[in-house]
Amino acid sequence: MPRALRRCACCHMGMDGAARIEDLVTTLQAQYGERCTINHDVRDRHGRGESWHPSAAPDVVVFPHTTEEVSSIVSLCAASGTPIIPFGAGTSLEGQVQALHGGVCIDLSQMNAIVAVNAEDMDCVIQPGVMRADLNAQLRDTGLFFPIDPGAECTIGGMVATRASGTNAVRYGTMRENVLGLTVVMADGSIIKTGGRARKSAAGYDLTRLFVGSEGTLGIVTDITLRLHGIPEATAAAVVAFPSIDAAVETVIEVIQVGVPIARIELMDDVSIDAVNRYSALTLPVAPTLFLEFHGSPASVKEQAETVEALATEHGSASFSWSDKAEDRSELWQARHNAYYAGLALKADSIGLVTDVCVPISRLAECIRETKTDLAQCPMPAPLLGHVGDGNFHVCFIMDKDAPDQVEEAERLHGRMVARALAMGGTCTGEHGIGMGKRTHLVDEAGDGVAVMALIKNALDPANILNPGKIFEVDEPES
Amino acid sequence: MPRALRRCACCHMGMDGAARIEDLVTTLQAQYGERCTINHDVRDRHGRGESWHPSAAPDVVVFPHTTEEVSSIVSLCAASGTPIIPFGAGTSLEGQVQALHGGVCIDLSQMNAIVAVNAEDMDCVIQPGVMRADLNAQLRDTGLFFPIDPGAECTIGGMVATRASGTNAVRYGTMRENVLGLTVVMADGSIIKTGGRARKSAAGYDLTRLFVGSEGTLGIVTDITLRLHGIPEATAAAVVAFPSIDAAVETVIEVIQVGVPIARIELMDDVSIDAVNRYSALTLPVAPTLFLEFHGSPASVKEQAETVEALATEHGSASFSWSDKAEDRSELWQARHNAYYAGLALKADSIGLVTDVCVPISRLAECIRETKTDLAQCPMPAPLLGHVGDGNFHVCFIMDKDAPDQVEEAERLHGRMVARALAMGGTCTGEHGIGMGKRTHLVDEAGDGVAVMALIKNALDPANILNPGKIFEVDEPES
Repeated sequence: MPRALRRCACCHMGMDGAARIEDLVTTLQAQYGERCTINHDVRDRHGRGESWHPSAAPDVVVFPHTTEEVSSIVSLCAASGTPIIPFGAGTSLEGQVQALHGGVCIDLSQMNAIVAVNAEDMDCVIQPGVMRADLNAQLRDTGLFFPIDPGAECTIGGMVATRASGTNAVRYGTMRENVLGLTVVMADGSIIKTGGRARKSAAGYDLTRLFVGSEGTLGIVTDITLRLHGIPEATAAAVVAFPSIDAAVETVIEVIQVGVPIARIELMDDVSIDAVNRYSALTLPVAPTLFLEFHGSPASVKEQAETVEALATEHGSASFSWSDKAEDRSELWQARHNAYYAGLALKADSIGLVTDVCVPISRLAECIRETKTDLAQCPMPAPLLGHVGDGNFHVCFIMDKDAPDQVEEAERLHGRMVARALAMGGTCTGEHGIGMGKRTHLVDEAGDGVAVMALIKNALDPANILNPGKIFEVDEPES
Repeated sequence: MPRALRRCACCHMGMDGAARIEDLVTTLQAQYGERCTINHDVRDRHGRGESWHPSAAPDVVVFPHTTEEVSSIVSLCAASGTPIIPFGAGTSLEGQVQALHGGVCIDLSQMNAIVAVNAEDMDCVIQPGVMRADLNAQLRDTGLFFPIDPGAECTIGGMVATRASGTNAVRYGTMRENVLGLTVVMADGSIIKTGGRARKSAAGYDLTRLFVGSEGTLGIVTDITLRLHGIPEATAAAVVAFPSIDAAVETVIEVIQVGVPIARIELMDDVSIDAVNRYSALTLPVAPTLFLEFHGSPASVKEQAETVEALATEHGSASFSWSDKAEDRSELWQARHNAYYAGLALKADSIGLVTDVCVPISRLAECIRETKTDLAQCPMPAPLLGHVGDGNFHVCFIMDKDAPDQVEEAERLHGRMVARALAMGGTCTGEHGIGMGKRTHLVDEAGDGVAVMALIKNALDPANILNPGKIFEVDEPES
C-alpha cells in the first residue's frame, strides 16, 4: 500500500492554475464582500501557528457564517481543484495551518455561536469558532463546565482538529472522549452529521472519532456536540516542590497506580518554574514541582489530598502549599497555562520547538530521566513540563529566530525523544498532532497503519484539496 | 455518494465460483488439517447468533492460532474473491455472523491467550478469542478488572467488533473508551497495528476507534490492548423496587444529573423481574426495579449510596435492599446478566427480537413511557430492561419459533421505538450493532454519513470480501 499521497491538485495547475485561483478569488469576493480578503497582512497571519515552522500564506482568506456557506466555498474549491485550509485561532504547534500549496483559508472564527446548552443532558452544541474560555464563561450559571484546556487561547474547532487535551485529561479524557457528534462538510461540499446526543452508540463506523484529530484533512467541522461535566462540589489545589525530578515523577506514578481520581497532576522542572516565576511574577521555589488539583465531594477531596500528600512526603516533598481561594487557584493555573509563553520570554526574539511524547506511566520516570540527561548538553534553554498523569510531557526548545543550527540541534534531540518514546510503547504526540512537523515520526510510529490512513484520505478527498501536506507527505512531482 | 455497496464478490462467481470455493477448501484442509472443517453441524452452528435472524452457514470453518495464519487465510480468500466471516462465540444479536454469501468462517476462539498483563500501567494485551469472564478470572490477583460486561458469554474480539458495553458503562465507558490498540489483518492480508499503550495520542487518524464497532467489515482483529481498572476498595449493591416505572426512571435521571459516579444503575420492569425470578429462583417483588452498584473508597461509597437512597425515597421507593456479601452481589448480577435467557424461558420454543435504543437521559422517561404504552397491546411477552444510566434500554420480544406474524408485529413495534429514539436525538443501537438486522435503521439514523462509511469500506475492502452484507445492504445483481 502507498505510504504517501499523490501530488497536491495545485501542483498540476501551472499557469492555468494561477488564472483559476484568480477567477475563484473574484467569485468569492463577489459573494462574501468584506468577508473575503487578499490583504497581505491578513494572509500572512493566517499562514502560521505558534511554533517555529516556516509560514506559508494562503492566496485568500474567507470568513463564512454558516455550514451552507462553508459547503458552498468547498464546492467552488472542489470544482477548481484548489487547496482548502481550515483555520481557528492559529495556535497550532505543528504547522497545521500553513498553506503549503497556497489556496483558500477558511477562517471559522466568526462561526462562534453557542447553539444550544442542554444542561439536563450535560451536553452542548456549538460552532467551531467558539473560544474555549468563552464557552466556560457562558456555561458558568448552568453548574457545568468543559474540562479540556490546551495551553493556548484556541477555538474548540481547532481542538477537535488536533484531538487536543490539556491539564484535566487525566480525569476527564481528551477531545476523543468529549466530542459526541459533529456536522462536517466533505471534500465535495456535501454535509454529513456524525454521532448524536446519546451517550453511546454502536451504529456503524465511528465517524466522530475519525474526524476528531484529522486536522482538516478529511472534512471541515461546522458544528460540534460536546459532553459537559458538573462543576465539582469541592476543589482543592496544591503546589509541591521535590528534591529531584525523579522523586516528583515517582510520586505521580504511585498516585495513578493507587487509583486516586486526581483532576490535574502537572510537572514543571526547575527551568520551567524559573520561567513562570519571571513571566507571571510568582515566587515559587525553583525546584521540580507538581501542580495538583482535586475535584469531588468535600469528603472525597479530603481523602484524595491526604493520600497524595502521604505519597509525596514519602518521596521527600519539601513543601505542600495549598491554594484554598479560587483566585489563588486561578492565578496558579493561568501561570501553568502560560508556561510556553514564559519559556519563549526567557530569550528575546525567540521561537519554540515543542516536543510532545507520551509513554505508558510505568516508563515515565525512565523516559524523563534519559531525556534530562540528553538535555544536559543542550546549548539553548529547554524547559520540561507536562501532563504527567497521562504520561505526556513536553520539552520546549527556546531557539533564536533564524538560527538553523539551533533548529537542527533541537530536531536531533526531538528525534531521540520520539525514538525513546516509541521504544517504550508510547507515541510521538500526545496532544499537538502531526501537522507538517511530525509526518516522518508518524511513519515511524504507525508503520503500515499510515497506508491505511492514506487509503481513507484518498477515498474521502480523492483530489487531495483538504489541507494538503498535513499528516501525510505529498509526493514530489515526477521529473 | 452511493448508499449501498456493490454486489458481493461471491455473487459474480457463478459455476466458476463454486469450483473456486472447492479448491480453496482443499487448500485450507491441506494446511490446517483438523482445524479446518466442512462438517454440517459445525458450519450450521457458525451461521447464527442468539437472536431470531435466519441462519446462513459458511462453506467452511477454519480455526487459526496466530495473526500470520489469519493473514494467510485472508490472502487465500482475497485471491479467490471469497467472503470471510470472523467468528467469536456466536452470541451476537443482529445477525453479525451469518454467512449471507457463503464463504470462509474464521473462528478465532482458539486464539485465546492473555499475551501480557501490565499491571503497573493498568493495561493488558490479549488475543480476540479470550472470554470476558476468563479475563477477569485471570486478572483477579493483580487487583485489576475489565469492566465491560455484555449479557452474553462472549469473546473480547466480538465485543471489539460490536462496540459492546453492558452494566458498568455508565461509570467505565464502553469498548470505545477501553480499547487502546489493535493488531488487524486487512482485506489484502497485510497486518497493521493501531494505537499503542500510551493513554492518549494525537498521531494521525484514530484507526483504533474506526475498527472498534466495524463488525468484521474492515479487517480482522487478532490482538487487542485493553485498558484495565482498579478493583474498587469498597463496593455496595442494592435492589430498589418502585411504585411505577416512571418513578424508577425519574430517580435514574436525577442520580445522573446530580453527578453521582454510580458504577451500575439498571432498570428491569415488572415483566423482566417476573422472568428472572422464575429463571434464577429469586423472590424479588414483581415491580419496576433498579439494580444499583457503587464503587469507590468506603467514604465515597457511603456518600453515593446515601444520595441515591434519598432520591429514590423521594420517588416513593418501597424498599432499599442492600447486598453486603460478595456472593449475594454476584448472584444478583448473574441474574441480571441472564435476563435475556430468562425472557426466552417465559415461553417454550421461543426466539427473541431484542431492541436496543439509547436516548439522551432527559428524554428517557418519556421514551420509556411511550414505549410501554405501545407494548400494552403487544400479543407476546415483551420484558423491558436496560442500562438506564446511559439512556439505553431493551425490549425483548419473545416470539414463537416459525411465527412470521409475530416477527412482523415485533418489527413494527421495533420500528416505532427506533423512530421515537431518533426523534429524541438518540440512536437505534446503544451496544448490539447493526449487523444484518438494523441496516435500514442505520440509514435513517446516519443519513449521508452512511455514504461516507461506504466510501471507507470500499477503500479498505474494495472486493467486499469482509463480512459482506453487514452494516451495509449489498446491491442486488442487475437483471
